[in-house]
Amino acid sequence: MEELERGLLMQPWVWLQLAENSLLAKASITKQGYALLISDLQQVWHEQADTLVVSQRAKELNKRLTAPPSAFLHHLEELLLPLFKDSAHQDAADPSHATFSCDRTAEALILRVQSELSGLPFNWQFHCTPASSSLVSQHLIRPLMGMSLALQCHGRELAALLRMKDLEIQGYQESGAVLSRSRLKTEPFEENSFLEQFMVEVSLLRIEFGQKKYPLMGTHTPPLSEVVSSGTARTIQRSAVLKKQTNKQKTKQKNQKAPATRLSDLFHLYF
Amino acid sequence: MEELERGLLMQPWVWLQLAENSLLAKASITKQGYALLISDLQQVWHEQADTLVVSQRAKELNKRLTAPPSAFLHHLEELLLPLFKDSAHQDAADPSHATFSCDRTAEALILRVQSELSGLPFNWQFHCTPASSSLVSQHLIRPLMGMSLALQCHGRELAALLRMKDLEIQGYQESGAVLSRSRLKTEPFEENSFLEQFMVEVSLLRIEFGQKKYPLMGTHTPPLSEVVSSGTARTIQRSAVLKKQTNKQKTKQKNQKAPATRLSDLFHLYF
Repeated sequence: MEELERGLLMQPWVWLQLAENSLLAKASITKQGYALLISDLQQVWHEQADTLVVSQRAKELNKRLTAPPSAFLHHLEELLLPLFKDSAHQDAADPSHATFSCDRTAEALILRVQSELSGLPFNWQFHCTPASSSLVSQHLIRPLMGMSLALQCHGRELAALLRMKDLEIQGYQESGAVLSRSRLKTEPFEENSFLEQFMVEVSLLRIEFGQKKYPLMGTHTPPLSEVVSSGTARTIQRSAVLKKQTNKQKTKQKNQKAPATRLSDLFHLYF
Repeated sequence: MEELERGLLMQPWVWLQLAENSLLAKASITKQGYALLISDLQQVWHEQADTLVVSQRAKELNKRLTAPPSAFLHHLEELLLPLFKDSAHQDAADPSHATFSCDRTAEALILRVQSELSGLPFNWQFHCTPASSSLVSQHLIRPLMGMSLALQCHGRELAALLRMKDLEIQGYQESGAVLSRSRLKTEPFEENSFLEQFMVEVSLLRIEFGQKKYPLMGTHTPPLSEVVSSGTARTIQRSAVLKKQTNKQKTKQKNQKAPATRLSDLFHLYF
């Protein structure tokens, strides 16, 4: 089963949009079995099944179908692959492929799949139990930390570029240059004020994911359509409160030097 | 115990630097008991203890000490608070406060504390077991996703500012302005090329955390000293390979338009 574990590590997470909700998922399927990880951001579930489990469950769920486990695994791969290959074009509810639904209890998540195999109805159930915290660390926590650190580094590089642009602009101004179109004039970049304002915005915003709202995922631009390819998460627009606070910040920028602010403070806001 | 759970949610994560390794941790201690979460990025551990557990364990570990559980809890709070209050100035190994060490098995993590209480030696052991995936989602996954989404949004805002700066610079140049100091001249910001180059850098870098190296946490600027206040994680410097690839990228930027790249691709790199 080591091959399955390695395979699962190589898979990216994608968002599965089911009729009733949406799930973050990754799967690895080989001739020897499958491994599946699923999360709704409230829990993380896992199933790893070998050929014995597959052929036994196939018998229980599909009395009229007789085939070797490898055939069932191949069919499951065909059903899941489109979802995991290009989640931007996934349509889990498309009957021509398969219908997915899931039931949840405190201790288990069952992902049901209905489709056809050689002209006969084919049913499958992935029986997932809560994932171990080592699996969660390996597949979610460490990648997310890597992502956050990389993005912090990215932000710092962009801020450095902005400071260089301001020096170039200052150079032109000192040589007596004047803009013919004054609307092109920008304010010098003040990282601290910018971050303060940004953190106010972030702290005020919410996103909806399925039926839930997660204040911790606040962001007001539409990144979710990029991050969450299925686009099931919706961002809520800036509130009037936010606009007011943003303006306050702008005034503050003019009147006084903002206190030191670091992006890492966001970690304390969120983390 | 609900109060403890709420309390734990309000606590930020901090890095505890122990003699042998470092741990990500958060704790909440009240008169009713304590709740503790610990991670070494390989697993997440949890203990929640009420006054009964506390007084029983206190008897086992400190035969000569007799005090009500609230006194032990208060002392534990005094020992832990400095670590969680300002992890930049924490010194877990300082004998004047307390000595921390931990033992790990597959199924448990024991965090040992040695100090003094009213002139007598005081020993404590936090007996942590693997945290449930719902606790991990609540305290790590959702905050980290929120952090990543906020940082993506932050990067987009900085990129928008850079485009405005370039328009202003173009305005000066069109009015015939020339820089007296040519070293101030910058290249126009090309987001796709910048992201491509950034992702090459990130994918090549590693950070060390305790004894482990985590490629998934690649970043080459020193953000960890900000993010990981205890500064126990060390970034590895850019390799010659990286420099070479970075130059390749720069040439590429000049010779051809880079294909569309999105920050969300980083999610597939990592996630």
